[in-house]
Amino acid sequence: MGSPLDAYIESNQARFLEELRSFLSIPSVSTLPQHRPDIDRASDFVAQRLKEAGMKRVERIITQGHPLVYGEWLNAPGKPTVLCYGHYDVQPPDPLEEWLSPPFTPTVRDHNIYARGAADDKGQMYIHIKAAETLLKVRGSLPVNLKFLIEGEEEVGGAAVDRYVKESPEKLRCDVALISDTEMFAPGLPTLCVGLRGLIYTELQATGAAQDLHSGIYGGAAPNPLTGLARILSQLLPPSHRIQVPGFYDDVLAPSPEEKASWAELPFDEKKFMEEEVGSSALIGEQGYGVLERLWARPTLEVHGIVGGFMGEGAKTVIPARASAKVSMRLVPRQDPARILSAFQKEVARLTPPGLRIQVRLLSSAEPVLMEPSHPSIQAAAKALTEIFRKPTVYIRGGGSIPIVSRIGESLKVPVVLMGFGLPDDRLHSPNEKFHLPNFYDGIRSVTRFWEILGGAE
Amino acid sequence: MGSPLDAYIESNQARFLEELRSFLSIPSVSTLPQHRPDIDRASDFVAQRLKEAGMKRVERIITQGHPLVYGEWLNAPGKPTVLCYGHYDVQPPDPLEEWLSPPFTPTVRDHNIYARGAADDKGQMYIHIKAAETLLKVRGSLPVNLKFLIEGEEEVGGAAVDRYVKESPEKLRCDVALISDTEMFAPGLPTLCVGLRGLIYTELQATGAAQDLHSGIYGGAAPNPLTGLARILSQLLPPSHRIQVPGFYDDVLAPSPEEKASWAELPFDEKKFMEEEVGSSALIGEQGYGVLERLWARPTLEVHGIVGGFMGEGAKTVIPARASAKVSMRLVPRQDPARILSAFQKEVARLTPPGLRIQVRLLSSAEPVLMEPSHPSIQAAAKALTEIFRKPTVYIRGGGSIPIVSRIGESLKVPVVLMGFGLPDDRLHSPNEKFHLPNFYDGIRSVTRFWEILGGAE
Repeated sequence: MGSPLDAYIESNQARFLEELRSFLSIPSVSTLPQHRPDIDRASDFVAQRLKEAGMKRVERIITQGHPLVYGEWLNAPGKPTVLCYGHYDVQPPDPLEEWLSPPFTPTVRDHNIYARGAADDKGQMYIHIKAAETLLKVRGSLPVNLKFLIEGEEEVGGAAVDRYVKESPEKLRCDVALISDTEMFAPGLPTLCVGLRGLIYTELQATGAAQDLHSGIYGGAAPNPLTGLARILSQLLPPSHRIQVPGFYDDVLAPSPEEKASWAELPFDEKKFMEEEVGSSALIGEQGYGVLERLWARPTLEVHGIVGGFMGEGAKTVIPARASAKVSMRLVPRQDPARILSAFQKEVARLTPPGLRIQVRLLSSAEPVLMEPSHPSIQAAAKALTEIFRKPTVYIRGGGSIPIVSRIGESLKVPVVLMGFGLPDDRLHSPNEKFHLPNFYDGIRSVTRFWEILGGAE
Repeated sequence: MGSPLDAYIESNQARFLEELRSFLSIPSVSTLPQHRPDIDRASDFVAQRLKEAGMKRVERIITQGHPLVYGEWLNAPGKPTVLCYGHYDVQPPDPLEEWLSPPFTPTVRDHNIYARGAADDKGQMYIHIKAAETLLKVRGSLPVNLKFLIEGEEEVGGAAVDRYVKESPEKLRCDVALISDTEMFAPGLPTLCVGLRGLIYTELQATGAAQDLHSGIYGGAAPNPLTGLARILSQLLPPSHRIQVPGFYDDVLAPSPEEKASWAELPFDEKKFMEEEVGSSALIGEQGYGVLERLWARPTLEVHGIVGGFMGEGAKTVIPARASAKVSMRLVPRQDPARILSAFQKEVARLTPPGLRIQVRLLSSAEPVLMEPSHPSIQAAAKALTEIFRKPTVYIRGGGSIPIVSRIGESLKVPVVLMGFGLPDDRLHSPNEKFHLPNFYDGIRSVTRFWEILGGAE
């Protein structure tokens, strides 16, 4: 393209890649205590690079868990402030034997860099740091104010960052947050994610007899918590896949006709999705809704595991005294997790068959999130992406939950731009995770452009 | 009583008890390989005692598993032949810390002998050996012909004895079989068990997607084997507890009005059963049938365990690719396990929701058993028990399955007298198993009397 920014990115491409390689070489697996020194090294690495990029007041914030890294540049008075969030921790790499190159020996093959954390999230968050560096080195200043907040516990629940955001609204005050930890809908297709489902995850603990009983001697009289749970679950989720909890759908906000129309334009092949991604003989779900709408904008109920009784090889004729089921519901915008939980608990109690007691315990919960695509920050992001990728930016939603997004929305009251540069086949959390290098460099271009537009550039 | 037989039993009571103590001291746990030497010692012990009691052709039959012990006395031409079955192996004793005295240090407290195997089945089967000894020592001959067949694998499936009975109908030819491995309905109440439920035990293996999927990303489109299994199980067993498999009840033989009337006379306290034995807030089962009828003469369906997905602590949002359920059905007389299995498989296939494949695998099966109480052998047993215990003998059934009973019926074509001297609180398979010593001595008296009556005595 030939702007000074482009020239800088191009001439530093090899160094950027080497830095990313070093970053990816640190096995900062947050869930394994033996990697704690690597967590420290990774957080140090981030702090050093922020400093070199020109951030001020860079600090490693000590928490009850892993350190947070903070840095800021606030010399653009009157301009918006952007909070850049990312995480330096990664998932465990197992199963190791399935990696074609070792997970912490980053290896470039066919324009992709293969390593644990390449896309999730080290490669993507490093885009923000290099974008800041590029602007400061070329221009001597930034078009917006920046605050970086990088955590090391995203893969284990993110408790420290959640608490920090909640308790530091002044320090983190901003006009918009930027997160690059999602995907493009298809290769080359610039994508903004503007909605996420929420979640309540529960455990149903059922108790019947005082102790395990022999089904020969007691079968026909003793209550069975497993058959009881099966009955309740199938009543909650009948073949229509319409969740049978009174009031469950009352607050569901349907996507606008425009949003639905835009989804219909996305390059989505249902047959390929079924055969190649899911690998099943049929797709299921509520009638009258397309697949993307079911995944992004309809609530669901899933059973994740049922524990109790005999789970070994062979046959044991036990009527278990206790059994439990892990059951979650994905929620969509306007559904309130607390209200849904209470309605769910009431309905489980109502459906509990004679002879059983069932307790519903909440294990985790997340608010659904919906951004307004017409918001100026989202529009700025879309414009930047469209320029760099030379295609109209598409707006999608995600079916999962990213708790930091609702935390930022709730505590800082700002919109979150989910500008992802991952690809659908990046294999996050799986062997041979990769990041597409052209997206790394175009990501840096897109983010610099986003900040320029936010700062008032045409 | 004062007969020479009674006198012999009385004067040898202390020795009988010492012998039983020695037998119970051998930790012949069949399921643990390290106890193989104890298995050999226990089978030797049985063979020696059979020889001392006067049995001929005593042998330890080597099998692919644990040895069988055989002995016979066939010097009563023209008289019936009785096959006495029992087992010398025992369950593991864990949890050890709950025993008041060590499981293999037999200890007498309050007219009970406490040890693993005291009632199940060493104490009960030793009754037969001491009954034979008593008659031979006092009279010099037996009123019937006897064949003993004692196995060492009852607690692990009884494969060797099953095969041996199947392949040796000539050697084991007899007119009636005698097994003492059941209970009296209540203390002091002479009891014959004349029916047993059968069983088919299956595993339903369900497959959905090609691999485990994230419920955020795929929930609403990917089939979930756990919700699928829950739905199938609840359709098979609705709240009525009437099993929804076409033709399932076609061959069920209802108990006769006389049998039902006799059950109504049994000392059974439903409230106490619910509160103290089951320990639940309600009993369940088919409407219109009493508890004993449901336990003994109605088929049931139970889920014993469901495996698949996430079964650890906490929350994991997985839609498992695979899940399986262990499901058994207890069968009652005239239901054919093979026919029921086939109908069950067809119905599971019919109920399988879109997107799932389900395989039904048979893990084990047993025929239901029903004896005719008016059969002369049963009548002889009842008469003997009534004389010794001075109460009318009651006829009950058992809800469980004893595979050797149907094997004897099928291969030897003779009735089986289930003359049990255990008590409902003997704690079989649990810590502090015991055997009530008065039942040991009255058992010896009852069995000698049974054989005398079978042999033609009034």
